[in-house]
Amino acid sequence: MDASALWQRYQDWLYYHEGLDFYLDVSRMGFDDAFALAMAAKFEKAFQDMNALEGGAIANPDENRMVGHYWLRDPDLAPTPELKGDIVDTLVQIETFTAKVHSGEIHPPASAKFTDVLSIGIGGSALGPQFVAEAISPIFPPLAIHFIDNTDPTGIDRILAKLKSRLSTTLVLVISKSGGTPETRNGMIEVQKAYECQHLDFAPHFVAITGKDSNLDKRAKSEGWLGTFPMYDWVGGRTSELSAVGLLPAALQGIDIRQMLAGAKAMDGATRIADIKKNPAALLCLSWYFAGNGKGEKDMVILPYKDSLLLFSRYLQQLVMESLGKEKDLEGNTVYQGVAVYGNKGSTDQHAYVQQLREGIPNFFATFIEVLEDREGTSTEVETGVTSGDYLSGLLQGSRQALYENQRDSITVTIRQVNPYTVGALIALYERAVGFYASLVNINAYHQPGVEAGKKAAAAILDLQTRSLLVLREAGKPMSVSELAEKLGASHQVEAIYKIMRHLHANQRGVVLEGNLAQPSSLMVSING
Amino acid sequence: MDASALWQRYQDWLYYHEGLDFYLDVSRMGFDDAFALAMAAKFEKAFQDMNALEGGAIANPDENRMVGHYWLRDPDLAPTPELKGDIVDTLVQIETFTAKVHSGEIHPPASAKFTDVLSIGIGGSALGPQFVAEAISPIFPPLAIHFIDNTDPTGIDRILAKLKSRLSTTLVLVISKSGGTPETRNGMIEVQKAYECQHLDFAPHFVAITGKDSNLDKRAKSEGWLGTFPMYDWVGGRTSELSAVGLLPAALQGIDIRQMLAGAKAMDGATRIADIKKNPAALLCLSWYFAGNGKGEKDMVILPYKDSLLLFSRYLQQLVMESLGKEKDLEGNTVYQGVAVYGNKGSTDQHAYVQQLREGIPNFFATFIEVLEDREGTSTEVETGVTSGDYLSGLLQGSRQALYENQRDSITVTIRQVNPYTVGALIALYERAVGFYASLVNINAYHQPGVEAGKKAAAAILDLQTRSLLVLREAGKPMSVSELAEKLGASHQVEAIYKIMRHLHANQRGVVLEGNLAQPSSLMVSING
Repeated sequence: MDASALWQRYQDWLYYHEGLDFYLDVSRMGFDDAFALAMAAKFEKAFQDMNALEGGAIANPDENRMVGHYWLRDPDLAPTPELKGDIVDTLVQIETFTAKVHSGEIHPPASAKFTDVLSIGIGGSALGPQFVAEAISPIFPPLAIHFIDNTDPTGIDRILAKLKSRLSTTLVLVISKSGGTPETRNGMIEVQKAYECQHLDFAPHFVAITGKDSNLDKRAKSEGWLGTFPMYDWVGGRTSELSAVGLLPAALQGIDIRQMLAGAKAMDGATRIADIKKNPAALLCLSWYFAGNGKGEKDMVILPYKDSLLLFSRYLQQLVMESLGKEKDLEGNTVYQGVAVYGNKGSTDQHAYVQQLREGIPNFFATFIEVLEDREGTSTEVETGVTSGDYLSGLLQGSRQALYENQRDSITVTIRQVNPYTVGALIALYERAVGFYASLVNINAYHQPGVEAGKKAAAAILDLQTRSLLVLREAGKPMSVSELAEKLGASHQVEAIYKIMRHLHANQRGVVLEGNLAQPSSLMVSING
Repeated sequence: MDASALWQRYQDWLYYHEGLDFYLDVSRMGFDDAFALAMAAKFEKAFQDMNALEGGAIANPDENRMVGHYWLRDPDLAPTPELKGDIVDTLVQIETFTAKVHSGEIHPPASAKFTDVLSIGIGGSALGPQFVAEAISPIFPPLAIHFIDNTDPTGIDRILAKLKSRLSTTLVLVISKSGGTPETRNGMIEVQKAYECQHLDFAPHFVAITGKDSNLDKRAKSEGWLGTFPMYDWVGGRTSELSAVGLLPAALQGIDIRQMLAGAKAMDGATRIADIKKNPAALLCLSWYFAGNGKGEKDMVILPYKDSLLLFSRYLQQLVMESLGKEKDLEGNTVYQGVAVYGNKGSTDQHAYVQQLREGIPNFFATFIEVLEDREGTSTEVETGVTSGDYLSGLLQGSRQALYENQRDSITVTIRQVNPYTVGALIALYERAVGFYASLVNINAYHQPGVEAGKKAAAAILDLQTRSLLVLREAGKPMSVSELAEKLGASHQVEAIYKIMRHLHANQRGVVLEGNLAQPSSLMVSING
């Protein structure tokens, strides 16, 4: 395509929203008008599905749940007055609690103010809060945030060592919808132990964000925790950033959560229009579908040219891949759907994997995220008439152009600033695009059966561990891993048992391994004491 | 395959290195013995190529350079006494300098000791140091490290705001082989300005790590910087972690760099053996080749079950994708090679995209990284007989098993601990595997032509900016973007010019845009004053 045709195409497809000061450019995706036309019927259905979802339909049939994250930023849309009341009340509760924490009206037992927030949660209870903290928390927030987002003992120890001298002024958030997420439960127990080690009563430091009447909710109430905030069964983990899960940590850091909600609401309005070209989420979704042929044949590479958006790709990895990565469609056909997502930031990544994007295997499409304002205040010149920000902008443009010249497709999202309003808008944009895409390929975007299966598989391993130790203790003599497996009636799990033994042995848990480590079948296992 | 056959396969393919206490398991990659046999001849060549490279051959023909990162950890291997002397001398220089900084013999002008290190570098000058800092820096290091790894003004401002009160005790490393990397140069200028704003002389704080006689080297010497450390033209950026680039920041943080080198040297020894089954790098490489059919048809997903290894995937993204993502092979044939790499950490990612890995599009293979020791000291029980670390281990095993059951291949790397020795070993392992893979697919793994092209494309944009401003100033009246492009003789660049104007306008740089922002061709551009 020659330059003037390309310039025409750029303008034909350019989406601009004045209120959001937001641009979306899909002109460098290689589809033509015929493709968009051919997709119109599919999108008609996607728009209808979304209407039904917003109206309170059971959009998550496997779990028999409504899908209501859009109501969070416009409670008037909630299908019942009770739901509306819940949303409004929770928001007020968050703001009241936060104001009291900031003023010192709510304070730790032995100090005038809380200084830090420690958030314990994983997946949807961590990725949104982490992305938002990195993107828009003040440089010197009223409370500094820290995350335990795993069940890694070393990771937990590292956070607790750093917080040691401020544990007495730390507010701990425990975030789990079911209240039964093992990683979160383990983190909670380890942190409570750290409080006990310092002879501190943990309850006046602990806040639960959890489903009403979950085990965690009951525990928090019976132990007299500082507070509890609700999670709703109609908000999934990966779309919970604008519920208490994301808003409470954000507010505690001094982030304007009303602006986050307003930005999301404005984007929700823009993405409700049933016309592909006038709907930025539909344009995104159209581009994704085109790139991967509706089957995820190309990876989605996210390249924000702004340091503060570094974690956006990790956030989107969950939102996109957990929503779209499904084996079955809604009719039960095996479809193996999904779109792989990765990326960090530009121009840093230009000095890393962009070499491959530009010249190597063309198995991706890129999404550039451009932020027009370089910084607050004026910039020094690094060369005559040129600033650091001009370089950043030039590197983005150069990279986009270079990809185009090598027939690699790209999307460009442009915002003025990274602020609570635009971050809310970006979250809403991608939530909606994922919802549309799920309709196009006819899958349930709102469940995650594989995650449940992973938990069960881990529980089976832990059960095997417990039973292995019993058998070894009873036996009172060394045996091979195969013998142990046989005694357990679990010969099919011999490899798992070997690995359990190896792990316990490495951690001085009373398991002795003798023999040649390079030959697992030669090893004799026993219990020491 | 039934459980006992699988257990036999596990043992048949298990690689164990006693000195490194390192396991590699490729048994869950779906290749058979015939495949390995068929690859033997290709590997024969790869082993020979690697021998030649280590012997000082011009293994990077496009840049006419030797490739010597393996000599860094075993200087006796260097092909000349001069090279050996350079390596040994640099290491002594790093250790001497670091000891003096730690003791206070080298100190900032107005204080007894340096408190912080600010590293300015991008790509290979940042990703290794960032990975190593996250993986093995002490919780309370003698000097805390911070990174400016981009030309993002907001990002730079954020780091400088955090360091403001300690700028007078900050040691600044400027890392650039050529001395001409624009992002790094910009960061340097911005940081120098910050020193000037505080009326501090920057030179006694600044250290250069750069090629001998580069512009940066000359500048450092003429301005009387605190020190300069060499980068060699036979060490590429992405393999420079065990050169001064990685070792100086590591040493300043109190990391045992001799242990890093020793771990790498031990792994180099293990990966020099010309027998696929006895060489862990060859086994890795064989697995990659099998997974992607030698064409990168599957993405490499890196899943370390250890928080401190979070940045390993970002490090490997560069190492693998910049090395292997090539358009041409060594004969000049168009091959579009590469392997896409992404990942964060387990079990966190099990609550994110592992849903897709398990059930969705099977376009990847996984690499689990297992760390046997849970933590220093004993663990509390989170359930009877079960610790947080047992959960982490169980989740890894469960996930690996679940992937296998769904016909998704995986590799498992097992180490005892994350420490300087094992981190050195992991780096060496992947460096070698990448080198082998390049031989198998007959490409140059040691250049990055696309990165250079990206720089040139950005420079062209900046040139267009300068010329546009000249024309607008001369014209003294508004014109459309197309008119401006025409006057510049750059009608083919009209879209780039529009974006330059939009960026300058957003930053109060004297450019006025009038008209409908949604219709770029309607806009009239002029200069304000």
